[in-house]
This record gives sequence, structure tokens and C-alpha cells, in this order.
Amino acid sequence: MCRWLAYSGTPILLDSLLYKPTPSLIDQSLHARLGVETTNGDGFGVGWYGPRADTPAIVREIGPAWSSRNLREIARHVRSPLFFAHIRASTGSAVQETNCHPFRHGRWMWMHNGAITDFHRMRRDLALAVDPELFLSVEGSTDSELMFYLALTFGLEQDPPGAVARMVGLVERVGREHGVEYPLQMTVAVTDGRRLWAFRYSTQRASRSLFYSTRVETLRSLHPDVEFLREASDETRLIVSEPLGGLPGMWNEVPEGRYGVVQPEGDGMARFAPQPMEEMQERSPEGEGSAISSRRAR
Amino acid sequence: MCRWLAYSGTPILLDSLLYKPTPSLIDQSLHARLGVETTNGDGFGVGWYGPRADTPAIVREIGPAWSSRNLREIARHVRSPLFFAHIRASTGSAVQETNCHPFRHGRWMWMHNGAITDFHRMRRDLALAVDPELFLSVEGSTDSELMFYLALTFGLEQDPPGAVARMVGLVERVGREHGVEYPLQMTVAVTDGRRLWAFRYSTQRASRSLFYSTRVETLRSLHPDVEFLREASDETRLIVSEPLGGLPGMWNEVPEGRYGVVQPEGDGMARFAPQPMEEMQERSPEGEGSAISSRRAR
Amino acid sequence: MCRWLAYSGTPILLDSLLYKPTPSLIDQSLHARLGVETTNGDGFGVGWYGPRADTPAIVREIGPAWSSRNLREIARHVRSPLFFAHIRASTGSAVQETNCHPFRHGRWMWMHNGAITDFHRMRRDLALAVDPELFLSVEGSTDSELMFYLALTFGLEQDPPGAVARMVGLVERVGREHGVEYPLQMTVAVTDGRRLWAFRYSTQRASRSLFYSTRVETLRSLHPDVEFLREASDETRLIVSEPLGGLPGMWNEVPEGRYGVVQPEGDGMARFAPQPMEEMQERSPEGEGSAISSRRAR
Amino acid sequence: MCRWLAYSGTPILLDSLLYKPTPSLIDQSLHARLGVETTNGDGFGVGWYGPRADTPAIVREIGPAWSSRNLREIARHVRSPLFFAHIRASTGSAVQETNCHPFRHGRWMWMHNGAITDFHRMRRDLALAVDPELFLSVEGSTDSELMFYLALTFGLEQDPPGAVARMVGLVERVGREHGVEYPLQMTVAVTDGRRLWAFRYSTQRASRSLFYSTRVETLRSLHPDVEFLREASDETRLIVSEPLGGLPGMWNEVPEGRYGVVQPEGDGMARFAPQPMEEMQERSPEGEGSAISSRRAR
Repeated sequence: MCRWLAYSGTPILLDSLLYKPTPSLIDQSLHARLGVETTNGDGFGVGWYGPRADTPAIVREIGPAWSSRNLREIARHVRSPLFFAHIRASTGSAVQETNCHPFRHGRWMWMHNGAITDFHRMRRDLALAVDPELFLSVEGSTDSELMFYLALTFGLEQDPPGAVARMVGLVERVGREHGVEYPLQMTVAVTDGRRLWAFRYSTQRASRSLFYSTRVETLRSLHPDVEFLREASDETRLIVSEPLGGLPGMWNEVPEGRYGVVQPEGDGMARFAPQPMEEMQERSPEGEGSAISSRRAR
Repeated sequence: MCRWLAYSGTPILLDSLLYKPTPSLIDQSLHARLGVETTNGDGFGVGWYGPRADTPAIVREIGPAWSSRNLREIARHVRSPLFFAHIRASTGSAVQETNCHPFRHGRWMWMHNGAITDFHRMRRDLALAVDPELFLSVEGSTDSELMFYLALTFGLEQDPPGAVARMVGLVERVGREHGVEYPLQMTVAVTDGRRLWAFRYSTQRASRSLFYSTRVETLRSLHPDVEFLREASDETRLIVSEPLGGLPGMWNEVPEGRYGVVQPEGDGMARFAPQPMEEMQERSPEGEGSAISSRRAR
Repeated sequence: MCRWLAYSGTPILLDSLLYKPTPSLIDQSLHARLGVETTNGDGFGVGWYGPRADTPAIVREIGPAWSSRNLREIARHVRSPLFFAHIRASTGSAVQETNCHPFRHGRWMWMHNGAITDFHRMRRDLALAVDPELFLSVEGSTDSELMFYLALTFGLEQDPPGAVARMVGLVERVGREHGVEYPLQMTVAVTDGRRLWAFRYSTQRASRSLFYSTRVETLRSLHPDVEFLREASDETRLIVSEPLGGLPGMWNEVPEGRYGVVQPEGDGMARFAPQPMEEMQERSPEGEGSAISSRRAR
Repeated sequence: MCRWLAYSGTPILLDSLLYKPTPSLIDQSLHARLGVETTNGDGFGVGWYGPRADTPAIVREIGPAWSSRNLREIARHVRSPLFFAHIRASTGSAVQETNCHPFRHGRWMWMHNGAITDFHRMRRDLALAVDPELFLSVEGSTDSELMFYLALTFGLEQDPPGAVARMVGLVERVGREHGVEYPLQMTVAVTDGRRLWAFRYSTQRASRSLFYSTRVETLRSLHPDVEFLREASDETRLIVSEPLGGLPGMWNEVPEGRYGVVQPEGDGMARFAPQPMEEMQERSPEGEGSAISSRRAR
């Protein structure tokens, strides 16, 4: 599997979260404690929004994060109000930049920890369900990227939780068709550069860990001497695969089968349930596939 | 585009053809003379059959061939009776090992110079035509790999020229459906470890260059002092994108729209013509796609 | 050899100079016109100063610049008032990040096009002349990096032109000791983040090309319709191995044996001559080597 | 630190030792049990002697061994009677091919697990002690490569145990001069393609683990059903950083401060003690440095 972090809030150097905490995300590339694999050395990526750019910058490398000098350089010099970082442990697909997270489409970024069980057997069916025009942009061979393009096909840009629910519904249906008992395991983060969603779900209801940071004002009263907290805006929020640093009271587990949204209008959390694809098929009888029709119907 | 060479004959060190001739294939990675691009620096690959192994070894790297120390080491120490070498100039798809040639399936190896015009637009339709079971093995994002899997779908292992003709027929049909005037440009080499086929074809009838070496006994009488020729068996044959070395009388151009076969039973050359896919569709009315049905019908 | 550019002026996206001009530096990685090699595909690097950081960020990769997606991402999202970019054509030393330019020491950056003739024979003597404390920081195996550390040894931080003159004097003396007729060929750029120096020199007085941009106010009157010129500050200046873009009146050749300085106090150009090392030895009789003593004497 | 294995005996596929045992060396790249670091993901290398070549082939990559497809290909297709394999965990120096083991000089190969304490401070003094002509070939920045070139300087090709003893003597003397209490930690393997030496030593007498395989005839009687043992010649021997596979009776620890030799004339083991460098200096009063003189005196 993998480890990731998503940050939204007061602009900070990437360094502050990638390297400075103990343990940091980079430490987790060598010694993750809560992951299925302890080593996440099969490439990494960072994606960040700048002050002016519409689309995020994405830098990915195929070597381990712990020894990348370029990552260290970028982390020390790039400041951003919203960024993703991801360290990869391949579950089989090739170690190449196009398989490293985050993935980008227009102003959207996506990253994933988990796996589609027996993905290679389902890959063709899932690829077929991607909108043909979007399919042009699929570059790698991971389940994660295909999940992103399925979510885009199902309306991610209009309704992220709904689109992810439909994507999961499809994966589970195709999984069942291939005789897979527990097709999906995922924690996903997705953003449009303004709002940030994070999902924790698995078919088996035994999802990989996911944590969100306590509200800054609460942390500030708990730790009045921590400088970063004095500077951080109240909206600052961090979502991570496993806790970084050692500040007591900092982390809260996202419950099983939930998603959260971090946004200027106020953060929130809600139950997450896949949307069964049978239901969708009824609504789109005319098309080649339900997925595509559902998109075209909008 | 790319440059490639295919060798079959007396076992030799890869070095003898990759580095020693002037110009050599490695020289062509920096300064090809007949290619569309003069630089072929977007990765490379070599594939060779050993004395016992059923399947070829394939080593690929994403850096330029001219600076690879590993390629030099392998070339100086590996001796083989049948090997492929390929240097890549990407026409758009990512520079990653899974996009480097040769591609392998079981005991088969495939490499390509050329391109499918507007490939990104046709990619989905072509991917759909690949046998679903074979599709599991597609790893990269090139037109070249997909052409290989289409040829496998269409019976490459039973009838290489026929399967390639059907693959080309499909590419041209899908191209026309997408309004592409000249969908295909290719020189292809393919082998099962015993026989070797090479194809030169383009829709426009203006194909990339392709050359085969003169018969060893003829060369031997022309150049009685060349040591390699004294040692080489009569069956030794070389097929290349553009001539290596400077031996007069060594190279003959493969004519436009032809394919050749190098085999213990005697080499040969024949006209190559795409097999229109309409014809195939008639034979497989029941299936989702003609390609797959045509294979299943075997 | 290599190609490089150095920019100082109104903060711009790196993209504006690395990719947008025709030809751009990235074009020159495939097809340099004035270089000894036409291909500069043995790694690259960019180094930039940010709004707050004391030291520049340096990102280097071992693949060709033309296919690097990370370079493109960084170029599109990083804005800087002072940056270097370098594309490498190795003259023999390994293709590895520690051999890519620019090199950094504290707030200083250095990059080089050219070579020390028969460097491998002189390498030990030159390495010995580096201040032992500075020697700890030498990481790669290039002549270029060693020239930087020699210049640092000889007082680069206090007197850049003098230190470079002493470095060149040493290289030429060691060269003569090894029977090398023309030991040095160089165009060098060096900066402390505020001022920028560029040197053009070769023992043979036949140096690689070097150009500086015309004053912005002159260009503005020549090309009143070019938007960039309207926005660029009067201090904006560019120094390049070979011209970028096609704006008439834009480029002026740095004459043979000259160096220039770009600085807020006003730019300037002066003759450059190596400082013979014999003279230095007289001043430092007590030490193991003249170079080190000369530094200690400060 | 690192993990390594050295094999001498009946020609086998590299695969048999790199991948097939449980645990294998490749497993140890992710989860070493006896190493200081559990992860050895900072590059790897294999070096092998072929049937005819005088010098070994060496293939090295900067990525982790566990995800290298090229290593897997080579391991499955290359058969050798004498080979080294090494997986690296950097103790600070850059992750680049020139820092990966094994190192080669002519027909000699060298690999190392361990470190020179505070190497960066001693590096210059140690580099100075390398024979100037040999120094031309130093390419990387590791302590391990410098130890090899020091041993070569001190007569490795004539007297491997003596040369290694002198190298260690020098490292310890230079270490003491820099106030380092325990300068050296090493297990080293070195071969000329016919004989193979392995050393276990550390200044602190607390050396990294090292094991050698039990004699084949003994193993054969213990495990009459293991096929490989029936085929392996009596001279077959394996030396490893930590045990591979799970065959009872297979492994014996090399005692602290010992070295072993594997050779056709019969294997052996002896005490290893550094040769103090003071003694050497007396014998070479005329030279610049004792090391170089000692070599010249031969």
C-alpha cells in the first residue's frame, strides 16, 4: 500500500510536513507503522497549488522518497496553501512516474492508498467504463489512476462524494462479476484546489487507517507554546494515512465508511456508501455502458 | 521514431553489433541518418535468447543508450544466436521501461519503428480489440505494444504474417473511422526464438527504411579478409532500420510493402498487404468484436 | 559540452525562458547549433532563488531535459528573479545527479560549459589544491565541480573575478606540468543570489560561445509590441551559451577573454586573464600547497 | 549498511541465490534481519565472470533491488561459476551507479558492508594515499570504493590479505589522527575471478555478521533430497552477510577478526589483523606517503 498526506490551510513550506515532524512522511517511506507494508519505496509524488496557477504542479520520481534530493529541495523552497504528498508501495504494477500519485486532471488532484483486489482481471472492464474522451488521458497502469478516471466519468467535478460512490459501486459490481469477495480497499484524497475530500472505505469494512487533525483553535489552547499553531489559520487542516509528529491531541481517526470535506465554508464529515450500479443502469438504458451514459445524461 | 536491429545466426557477443561497427546502433542513438528524428534518446532495450532458456531475457532502461554502462556491460558479456536491440525516440508517450522495446509475450519478442497516427484517439478502440485475457499483460502506453497484443490476438503464434496483416487491417479501419488518412507507419520485427520476421509497411506507401544483410557466403567472397565473415555460419542474417558499419555490398533495402522471414529452412521475402477487417467481421458475427471472435474461433 | 542560461531581473516563470522561446534551451538539448555536441542529453539542472530563502533550490535529473516532466512542472510553477538552467553533454564522467550543474555551496551557485583537457590525469593534483574543509563537500567527479571548489578555495566569496583567475591559473599550471597544451576551455556563470558573473575564456583563445542580452530599455524601443519587455525591469539581463528566441537585436556576443557582472549597481564587462600560480607560490612558502595557503592568508 | 553474497562453485543461474531461497537476498533488500538498517533500497549491483571473459560483467542500478525488472531478467538468464551480488543502504553518500557495489578494477571485484566512521572528514587523506595512477579510476564518493583502491595501492593483486591489512591499518591511523575512536567497520569480499577472499573486521571488535556455507559433501549427507546439492560440485561455497534460505546446518558464522579464502587448492580461514602503518613508513622513508612507496617498492 502507500502513505499519503493532504494539507489545506495557511501557506507553509512542504518541508514542514514532509520532513520536520517525527515521524515524518519521509520517515514512513522507510518505516511505516500502520501500513500493510512497512516500506514505501516504489516512487513518490507531491502536488501543490501555487498563488496564481489554476492547475497544481506535480513532481513525481520513481526512486524512494527517503533518498531523493530533488524532493528535499522542492520541500524546502515551495510554499503552498494546499498540497498532496504520496509515497508508494507498489502492489504489482510497474514502478514508473505515470504510476506515481498524485494524478491530475485539469485543476483536480487525486491520490489513493489501498488496492482493487485482483485488479488485473478487472482492469479491462473498468477501463471500458471510463468515458472515451477521458480515457485519452490515462497514462499509467494502476488501479488508483483508473479509479480517478472512473470518478471523473461519474461526475467528480460536479459532485465528488456522489461520483466516488458511483465509482466504488462499479468496482464492487465488476468485482462480484469476477468472483472477488472484497473488491475494494481505499483511502482517497481529492481536491479541486479549493476544497478537499477524503474517503475511507473498503468492501470488507476493514479499511486502511486515516486520520484528520484536530481544529487549530483547540490545538492552540492545548499547546500554547507551539509556534506553528500560533501562525496557522483556523481553517488549517491535515489528513494523513497515519499520524505524523508526536503532538498529543493532534489526531483523530476517520471512522470506517466515512468521508470528510475541508472547505472555506466549514469542514464536515458524513457516512460514505457505494452507490450500487444496478440502480444506475436502470436510469441509462440506451447507452453502451451505464457509466458513460450516466455521465452523458448530465 | 526509433532504430532497431535484429540478429540471427552464429552466436556472437551483442557488443559486435551494438558498439563495434562504425556507425553502430549506439552511434545512431545520437546521430541517426535515416530516421525522422536524429536523436533516439528516450530509452532502449535488448532482448536475447540464451542456450537453454525458453523465453528471451529483456533488459530495458529509460536513459539514452549512449550513456548506459549497463548496456555496455551486458553487450560485452552476453553471447546469443538471436537477439533484438532497440533505441527509442518517443512520439509522445511517457519515457518508462514499460514503453521500451522489445516487448515479450511467452517466447515471443516484438519491436517496432514507426507510429499509429493520432494514436491517442484510437487507443481505446484498439485496446478493446485485444483479447481480454491477453489484455491483462499490456503494461505500457505505446502504440507499439498494443500492435503486438493485437497481432497476438489475431493469431501471431500460429501465422505471423497473417496476424500482422489482420492487425494492420484493424488499425487502418479504426483509423479511417476516426478520419485519419494515413493511420499506420511501421517496420516491425518479431520472433519466437527460432524464426524471425520483419515487416515494412505504411498506409501511405512511404515506409521507414529497412535493410537486410547480404548472404554470408556472398559477403565472404567479396571480403575474404573480414574475420567475422569467416566464422559466421551461412544462415547468419541481420535486419536493421539503417545500415551499420561500412562494408560495401553488405546491405539491401527491404522494398516497400514487403516482409521477410529468417529461418533454418531458408530465408524468404514476400509482399505484405493488410487484411481488411470487414472480411473478418463476416466470419465472427456472434461476438462483441471481430478481433476477439476471430481468435476464439481457432 | 553543454548549454546554459542565467537570468537576473523581474521575477518570471522559469518556463518563459526554458520552454517558450523558439529555439528554447530545451530545444537545444536536442539540437544545439553552436555547441561541440548537438545533443545535450546527459542530465540537466535548474537552480533558483526564492523570495525568502538564503540558498537556492537546485533540482537535477540524469535523464534528458527534453523528456523530463518534472522540469516542465517546475518551470510552469516556479517564479524567480534569479535562476540558472543547464543541460549537460558529458565529456566522459558518469551521468549522475552529482555531476549535473548547477553546483551549490551555501548561497553560491556555479555552472560551466567546456572542459579541462585530459582532466582525469590532472584530477588528483587539482583535488589536492582544494581547501581540505571545502573538499568535504565535493560529491561528483566532474572537472566543473572541481573548478568551483578551487574558485571557492581561492576566495570566490570575496572576489569572484580574482578567484576565478587564480583557479584558471592553477588549472593551466597543472596542465602544463602534465604536458597539456591547451588545458582549459570554459564559459562559467556564478552567483551569490544578488550579483551574477559570467566568464568566457580558453587557453587557446578559442572559447565556446557566450551571449548577453541587450539592455531592456533598448529592446523596448526596438520592439514596443513585445509584452514581456514592457513588464521587465530595466535591470533584467540574460546570459546564454547560444541565443534563444528570434528577437532581432536581442543578443550580443561576449568577446573572447572577458567577464561580465550583472548587479543592481550597474552591469559591466572587463578583460579576463588567468592569474599565474607561480606568483602565488612566492607568497605562501610555508604551506603544503599554494592554493590552500593563499586562502588561509586572507 | 548493506547485504551481500559471494558465490563460487558449479555454474548456476544467479536467480538460484538472488530470488529463490526464502529469505533471499532480494527479500533482504526489504527486510534484513541482521543489518543495522532493515531496508537496503539505495541501489544494487551484480558482478559475474563468464565462461571466456577475463573481466567480470557488472550491472548496477540506483533503484531498489526488489522492484528491478532488469535484475530479475539477468538473474534468470545468466549462469556463472563466480559472482557477487550487493544491495545497498547508503550511509550518506549519493545514490548513484558509481556508488553501487561491486567495484571493479581489471579482473578484480570488491564489495563491502560497513562504513568508515566520519568518512567525510578522512576522505581527503585517504584519497591522497591512493596511488596517483589508480586514483584516475576512482569514480564514486563512497568509503567502500576508496578502501578498494587503497587495497589495490597496497598490493591487492599480489597479496590480498596483506593488502587489506595495510588498508585497514591506514584507515585506523588516519581515523586516530582525526580523533575517531572506532574508525572501521567492515565485511569485505574480493575476487580475481579464480579465488575469493572474505574479511570480517571492525576496530571495535563488534563486526557486522558474516556467514559461510557448510561443505557441500556434508550438506549432501544431511539433506540427500535437496536437488541442488546433488548437482553442486564439492568446491561450491557461498559467503553471505546473513543467512539465505532455511536449510538446517547450512550456515556457519565467520568469527570476529577472521578472513577466509575459497579457492581450487582448498579453502581456508585465518586470523585477520590490521597492519599498523607506522611500521610501513619505516620501510619507505624516501616517498611522499608510505602507502604509495610501499607499492612502488614491490
